[in-house]
Amino acid sequence: MWSGQPPARPVGRGAKVRAAVHAATLAELVDKGYASMTVENVAQRAGVHKTTVYRRWKDRESLLTDALAEHMATDIPVPDTGSIETDLRALARSIVQALTSPAGQAILAAMFTGAAHLPQIAAARRQVFDDRLARAEPVLRRAIERGQLPADIDPAEVLKTLAAPIYLRLLITAEPVDETTADQAVRVTLAAVRAGALRPGRHDEPVGE
Amino acid sequence: MWSGQPPARPVGRGAKVRAAVHAATLAELVDKGYASMTVENVAQRAGVHKTTVYRRWKDRESLLTDALAEHMATDIPVPDTGSIETDLRALARSIVQALTSPAGQAILAAMFTGAAHLPQIAAARRQVFDDRLARAEPVLRRAIERGQLPADIDPAEVLKTLAAPIYLRLLITAEPVDETTADQAVRVTLAAVRAGALRPGRHDEPVGE
Repeated sequence: MWSGQPPARPVGRGAKVRAAVHAATLAELVDKGYASMTVENVAQRAGVHKTTVYRRWKDRESLLTDALAEHMATDIPVPDTGSIETDLRALARSIVQALTSPAGQAILAAMFTGAAHLPQIAAARRQVFDDRLARAEPVLRRAIERGQLPADIDPAEVLKTLAAPIYLRLLITAEPVDETTADQAVRVTLAAVRAGALRPGRHDEPVGE
Repeated sequence: MWSGQPPARPVGRGAKVRAAVHAATLAELVDKGYASMTVENVAQRAGVHKTTVYRRWKDRESLLTDALAEHMATDIPVPDTGSIETDLRALARSIVQALTSPAGQAILAAMFTGAAHLPQIAAARRQVFDDRLARAEPVLRRAIERGQLPADIDPAEVLKTLAAPIYLRLLITAEPVDETTADQAVRVTLAAVRAGALRPGRHDEPVGE
């Protein structure tokens, strides 16, 4: 009943439940993989009732996509060291670390194996990648302001060039991925930027020399 | 019964059956996807009896991995134009074409969605990629002989740098992949090669300038 005052509401209760359920979803993925993950197990692990989970997430697919968006939005710290080399190296190494951690491996396995057939997973992959691009762009903007990179670069292309060899190894060649992979990706990316190969709107020009 | 002479054997009969079954497997993948593919349908489409298929392939998983290895071993022509720019551009465009054709799309969907959970698929991905690398290496060797590329390059790294942005778009960002993507990959790869970023054994050196 409306008494003129809003009812007292436990502040942050919803946020706490969300965080606990996200953490439990990741832990279940790491321990058992997506194929064996159930809403019941996630609820039990999070210490909440199953109906609490179902009030916020309609099924385990939603649990998965929501937890991975949450996880991947925060797993890559954005460096600001004053140098584009060390910034890109830190960024590439963070990407490698995130993707090779137990949580990262469990998420990749879910996205590309266990849950690869779900239509919402394709959207989640794209979304996660776009979010990372958006968060990493300041690294490039600051380097341009410091005069360490030419101003006419396409930031999204630069960051995709950095990430591409890491994903190729993880998803196709199944080679080990480590700091060496990250550093090599930085060398390639910087060489491409400095040669003007990652300028915006170069798409119609000939390859040339 | 052994009569001292080997029995007359229809030359190439086995090869013809294999080719017909491979083609039928790809056609079934394109039309229906891996989830709906059956040995029975493949046999019918190939115009052979089901038991003929089962004599050579133990299940539909073997049909799939065999057909895709066969297909991908021959789908990328290896160019020899006299110029490393035009060779790499032709190679990158062929990769794009192969991966975006109906057969290529059906195979990618099977490898990364429908059949992604099969252990032999991970091995197939790696194998297919290694085969392509091995076949494309002469392009780089010839460019070195012509003095168009430095001799101290790691050919596998060069070709992975070429392919990586194409796969990133197909598997992660779901952006359109076309000749523009291919040409951009060539620019990045050549810039990296010329800057010495794809030398063998650079793996322990600092990123540097």
